Amino acid sequence: MKLVRYTRDNITAMGVVKDDGIVDLKALIPGFDGGMIELLQSESTLAAINERLAAADITLSLKDVTLEAPLTNPRKFLAIGMNYQKHAEEAKAKGITPPEHQLWFNKQVSCITGPFNDVELPTVSEQLDYEVELAFVIGKRCRHVKVEDAADVIAAYTVCNDVSVRDWQLRVQTWTMGKSFDTHGPIGPWLVTKDEISDPHTLDLKCYVNGELRQSSNTSDLIHDCYQMVEHLSTVMTLEPGDIIATGTPSGVGVAMQPPQFLKVGDVVRCEVENIGYIENTIVAEG
Amino acid sequence: MKLVRYTRDNITAMGVVKDDGIVDLKALIPGFDGGMIELLQSESTLAAINERLAAADITLSLKDVTLEAPLTNPRKFLAIGMNYQKHAEEAKAKGITPPEHQLWFNKQVSCITGPFNDVELPTVSEQLDYEVELAFVIGKRCRHVKVEDAADVIAAYTVCNDVSVRDWQLRVQTWTMGKSFDTHGPIGPWLVTKDEISDPHTLDLKCYVNGELRQSSNTSDLIHDCYQMVEHLSTVMTLEPGDIIATGTPSGVGVAMQPPQFLKVGDVVRCEVENIGYIENTIVAEG
Repeated sequence: MKLVRYTRDNITAMGVVKDDGIVDLKALIPGFDGGMIELLQSESTLAAINERLAAADITLSLKDVTLEAPLTNPRKFLAIGMNYQKHAEEAKAKGITPPEHQLWFNKQVSCITGPFNDVELPTVSEQLDYEVELAFVIGKRCRHVKVEDAADVIAAYTVCNDVSVRDWQLRVQTWTMGKSFDTHGPIGPWLVTKDEISDPHTLDLKCYVNGELRQSSNTSDLIHDCYQMVEHLSTVMTLEPGDIIATGTPSGVGVAMQPPQFLKVGDVVRCEVENIGYIENTIVAEG
Repeated sequence: MKLVRYTRDNITAMGVVKDDGIVDLKALIPGFDGGMIELLQSESTLAAINERLAAADITLSLKDVTLEAPLTNPRKFLAIGMNYQKHAEEAKAKGITPPEHQLWFNKQVSCITGPFNDVELPTVSEQLDYEVELAFVIGKRCRHVKVEDAADVIAAYTVCNDVSVRDWQLRVQTWTMGKSFDTHGPIGPWLVTKDEISDPHTLDLKCYVNGELRQSSNTSDLIHDCYQMVEHLSTVMTLEPGDIIATGTPSGVGVAMQPPQFLKVGDVVRCEVENIGYIENTIVAEG
């Protein structure tokens, strides 16, 4: 199922995608009054939606709504660096040593924005860059999850553009600031529940800038796969429902081009992942 | 004012410290039903508490309750590295280059624990270390705050032990994992509202392990002060009510001792900051 948050007439609601429309969640499950995180952890509600969706009437056409970030209030928004072999090699060419261990950093949860919202070029930098990524969302509170049990704690998948400000990212070893500018975490267009993604490690992913293909790879090229990420993270910390985990970007980022090509005001960045969909964001001047 | 969260008879509530007791918040402000974040951003509620506290009866003695982390659900828990000159020098001696720019990383919000709760020695490491820090808490949603306006967006101060797992921290450049183990973010014992801290840059801070003084400094030695931190962070991101910002630790950490002295099961770590109070945590084996 594709779980969405959408706005129409200034009211934001949750729904489920059916064909080219949305079935409002309140029509499917009248008694449910939680948000997306509550929905992700309620297996019985998800099962009931699944049962009722085929017979349900479409409430609204997708073209008549604004799609919002499917989740805006996770407790954590973690991302892994240099997790595709070819991207690690292009980073190495820029003087960055590929890590021996999983290399995790945070995007601040305040940078999350909608799948078709504008992304801001900061006033303090001209080194704005894109990174298409598969992201997964945790459905169960868990700790010390083994690789073989990891699929069970993942609730859903989505597309993420790990927008990066390269000078702010690379001048400090921890990367935190350059990954966390407001609007630099577009996700969506919806959460695809795991029953529709039989294997998250066989998905094509692509990024286009103004229609030009810049990144093209497949999640089969991940160095650390989704399940190894869950094991590693949960060795240290409790993962909680709603936590968003971005799984790394393949080669082809702007900073690694010769010469580097950064994003400019007016550019349109489209990130897509097979079996999920795409997000598309226009670069605007900050403020 | 000292704002607390406390538990008695399995019920957790909010209150205000008066002498050696607590005045329950419901007794002071019967209509208030928000949490600590809502309280911090309601200047009128804080003013009403201030007005009524002198005449209010103490509800409970401090010794009859368990003090909880004053805040458990911030959107962000950020911390700065190497922000005391002498600590930066001891880090340099360990091969870490002091940063040119403010060096920010995240502690995961899931690592927050109470001021007197146990701290876990992970099963995967023996390099557990302490870091006493002054932390401040944001009271107003803000972006692009100048140094001269920064005091206005800070609501309160607290003590933080930025517990660190050194091998997990230092083997990856971003530090994220080694700063984020469950229970490794004890804060408290309460939030001291800013009206009681006329200058956050003149406070002694100390850390004791089993009564032995290990860290002793003053916030006048901060390289980047609290207001410069607010300006820098808010250049990039919207700061939100409840965000916790840990301001760095002075010299004297265990990893820098000759030979290094890591924390063992049974050790008691006490972190204190002048005009705020102390937190004290016992090291236990994980699980």
